[in-house]
Amino acid sequence: MPERLAVIGGDAGGMAAASVARRRDPDLEVVAFERGAYTSYSACGIPYYVADYVEDSDELISRSPEEHRENGIAMHTRTEVTDIDLDRRVLTVRELNAGREREEGFDQLVYATGARETMPPVPGWEALEPALKIEPAERLKSKLRGAEGKHALVIGASYLGLEMAEAMVQRGLDVTLIDMADQVMGSLDPDMAAHMQDAAEGSGITVMLSTALEEVLLDSNGRPHAVRTSQGEIRADHVIPAAGVKPVTALAEAAGLEIGESGAVRVDDHQRCPGVDGVFAAGDCAESHHRILERPVNIQLGTHANKQGWVAGSNITGGDFAFPGVIGTAVAKICRYEAGRTGVSEREASAAGIDYVSVTIKSTTRAAYYPGAGSIWVKLVADPSSGRLLGGQIVGEEGAAKRIDVLATCVWTGMPVQEMQLLDLSYAPPFSGVYDPVLIAARQVAKKVGG
Amino acid sequence: MPERLAVIGGDAGGMAAASVARRRDPDLEVVAFERGAYTSYSACGIPYYVADYVEDSDELISRSPEEHRENGIAMHTRTEVTDIDLDRRVLTVRELNAGREREEGFDQLVYATGARETMPPVPGWEALEPALKIEPAERLKSKLRGAEGKHALVIGASYLGLEMAEAMVQRGLDVTLIDMADQVMGSLDPDMAAHMQDAAEGSGITVMLSTALEEVLLDSNGRPHAVRTSQGEIRADHVIPAAGVKPVTALAEAAGLEIGESGAVRVDDHQRCPGVDGVFAAGDCAESHHRILERPVNIQLGTHANKQGWVAGSNITGGDFAFPGVIGTAVAKICRYEAGRTGVSEREASAAGIDYVSVTIKSTTRAAYYPGAGSIWVKLVADPSSGRLLGGQIVGEEGAAKRIDVLATCVWTGMPVQEMQLLDLSYAPPFSGVYDPVLIAARQVAKKVGG
Repeated sequence: MPERLAVIGGDAGGMAAASVARRRDPDLEVVAFERGAYTSYSACGIPYYVADYVEDSDELISRSPEEHRENGIAMHTRTEVTDIDLDRRVLTVRELNAGREREEGFDQLVYATGARETMPPVPGWEALEPALKIEPAERLKSKLRGAEGKHALVIGASYLGLEMAEAMVQRGLDVTLIDMADQVMGSLDPDMAAHMQDAAEGSGITVMLSTALEEVLLDSNGRPHAVRTSQGEIRADHVIPAAGVKPVTALAEAAGLEIGESGAVRVDDHQRCPGVDGVFAAGDCAESHHRILERPVNIQLGTHANKQGWVAGSNITGGDFAFPGVIGTAVAKICRYEAGRTGVSEREASAAGIDYVSVTIKSTTRAAYYPGAGSIWVKLVADPSSGRLLGGQIVGEEGAAKRIDVLATCVWTGMPVQEMQLLDLSYAPPFSGVYDPVLIAARQVAKKVGG
Repeated sequence: MPERLAVIGGDAGGMAAASVARRRDPDLEVVAFERGAYTSYSACGIPYYVADYVEDSDELISRSPEEHRENGIAMHTRTEVTDIDLDRRVLTVRELNAGREREEGFDQLVYATGARETMPPVPGWEALEPALKIEPAERLKSKLRGAEGKHALVIGASYLGLEMAEAMVQRGLDVTLIDMADQVMGSLDPDMAAHMQDAAEGSGITVMLSTALEEVLLDSNGRPHAVRTSQGEIRADHVIPAAGVKPVTALAEAAGLEIGESGAVRVDDHQRCPGVDGVFAAGDCAESHHRILERPVNIQLGTHANKQGWVAGSNITGGDFAFPGVIGTAVAKICRYEAGRTGVSEREASAAGIDYVSVTIKSTTRAAYYPGAGSIWVKLVADPSSGRLLGGQIVGEEGAAKRIDVLATCVWTGMPVQEMQLLDLSYAPPFSGVYDPVLIAARQVAKKVGG
């Protein structure tokens, strides 16, 4: 009898594992379960769908359930796994439409339940819907099309919160963005985040920092009409939670899988759950090793989920691949600015007790004389004794943020800034001045470490 | 008495050396000689000046002679060095306006004469002017403003040739671009270059390949009106040479400085001319070590010139810095496409007897559903046994080419493609699909080398 692989979760991590395993071993029986109606969709694309840059939610789906089935995967949607019995190697699954439960056996298992938005623990929260799921986004968009209400409030000035705020402004709404912190985008240092706040405010978003949500005020139909905050009441016909996401681990915990210090499912570098044979985890529900902080972290990002799924699926089918960890690289476009970050920020270095020097430079995205040259700020964080690059942040106009990948590659390889400053990076006036901003910043830090 | 540093050549290499040396050692006497009237200008910016993206040639000048003087450099323009006497440590210089000659002593010398366009060896060539100098560009622009003639011919489908052809099309001229080779942009492999040819032709440039120039046909005033080629006669009121540049070495050769196998002035990794104490060379006239080909090359690029000048100027003033070499990174924007390249191309690998595997993938510059997502092709060349990345080429729409810097950093560090495919590069829909095109390409090559 062929081996049977069961996958819990029909999104990036799970379906990458399922697809790779099936491709590498066509004799493997692969079955996958997804609570929702959709598979393999881009949660990151939802703000653009809400903004109407993307008209139809189908465009966000990279592979439909039918396509997975055509690839030989027994894909069950609207089917929730309610129990994992590791001893018997059996899942209990419930068909949500029919309400029926049944058992499904497995030889190997991929746990890929993803993450879920945390709802603010305030009265009225039950009227809110998660921002990063397709079905709620479809409902939101249909309300917006119906022009129900002109006031939107976004809770949380994360990347997602800012993207959703921009989407609502694009649609002509009055938008307020609140956050308890005293800056937007907490993964950036405050000096860099300030530029992103400028961009948001420049597009008409009202940003209220150091502001705590106290209550979502509902009308007699149970629909939000305002929120009460530590800074007073704010009118809000639409309230979007974007205060953070948490890994979905309840099922794993109940089954006895280990939960790591980051709160996500613990895995080794082969995506195996330690101590349990043939059980893997991948994606937003799983931990990753942070190569600079040297500890496990939980970073929810489709690109990690895909890679981890690929590693799991390859190892399930006789491969020997290690997921090499993450360095916290991220990028976003908010109104007229782009932001990228990688490695550790100044604040993260401080918090982790890592010695560092840092420098921030301002330059232009193109040669100063070339049309469309815009501002770009590059911040580097380096080890003061070796000069090794520990992290970088880039903020600026079009063409700025993707440069973060050069910094990511340097952080990844542990390149010293003394070497970086003489790297053979590309130059032509439509793309940079004769010294790329990245090199200018490297030179400034190199001076500080004596290079 | 203070030491005296003399610099021959008032552009990137020479003036970087002069400026750095002066900044590091304010007691050093620094004197610099430049044949032309301008200093520290961006030759790379000239096509944009001709296109009128940049109105005034002053905008191309990063530091004027006056600014250099304010920084304590005795800057002599319109002054040509006609002889270097290394034994007596004396230069002979000629003031071009006054026609006077005099001698100038030095303790240390930076030779930074740059490069000069090669003129086609055909009858009528004497009517042509170099494309990469400010004064001829000013004359060309003034003719174009006067609407003298509607037909332009560019000789050489190099980056520069294509940029100049685009500039002329922008100004409404009929433009023909000819090249003896059977592809445009010889530093790209033919498959990648074909896309750039598409872009040029899509903008209305007539591209004639495998076409040799035989004569520039002049009217009775000695001005071009057509050219004769191996494919027939072509009308041409403006003829722009862009068939390549050569290092300016005559003065160095006469002085007994060593000329390397690349035809440029030989230097060690400290930019010292071997065997001659206190004499340095930097910039387009000097050789660089190619880290992949493992031999000296001569690549004319402002970014190398600046870095080499910085290394020379630092070492002249007690520093101990090595120029780490180049890997042939370059980038250009031609009409609707951008192109980048780094390391060795497939053809270069073949010619150098380097074993390789390669792969080309097509993807999108943004998530496929995000507005403005355009085509991008990524080609990687890797070592078949170790998987080490040897080179890369990227062609595509806006946002494509600067990704070459990630490949450059990987080539620089010798990263294997098996490692590259799992690099933590940034992801968000405005910038890429969930797998960056660079990672997709890395995965495809990794498969070929068994990763």
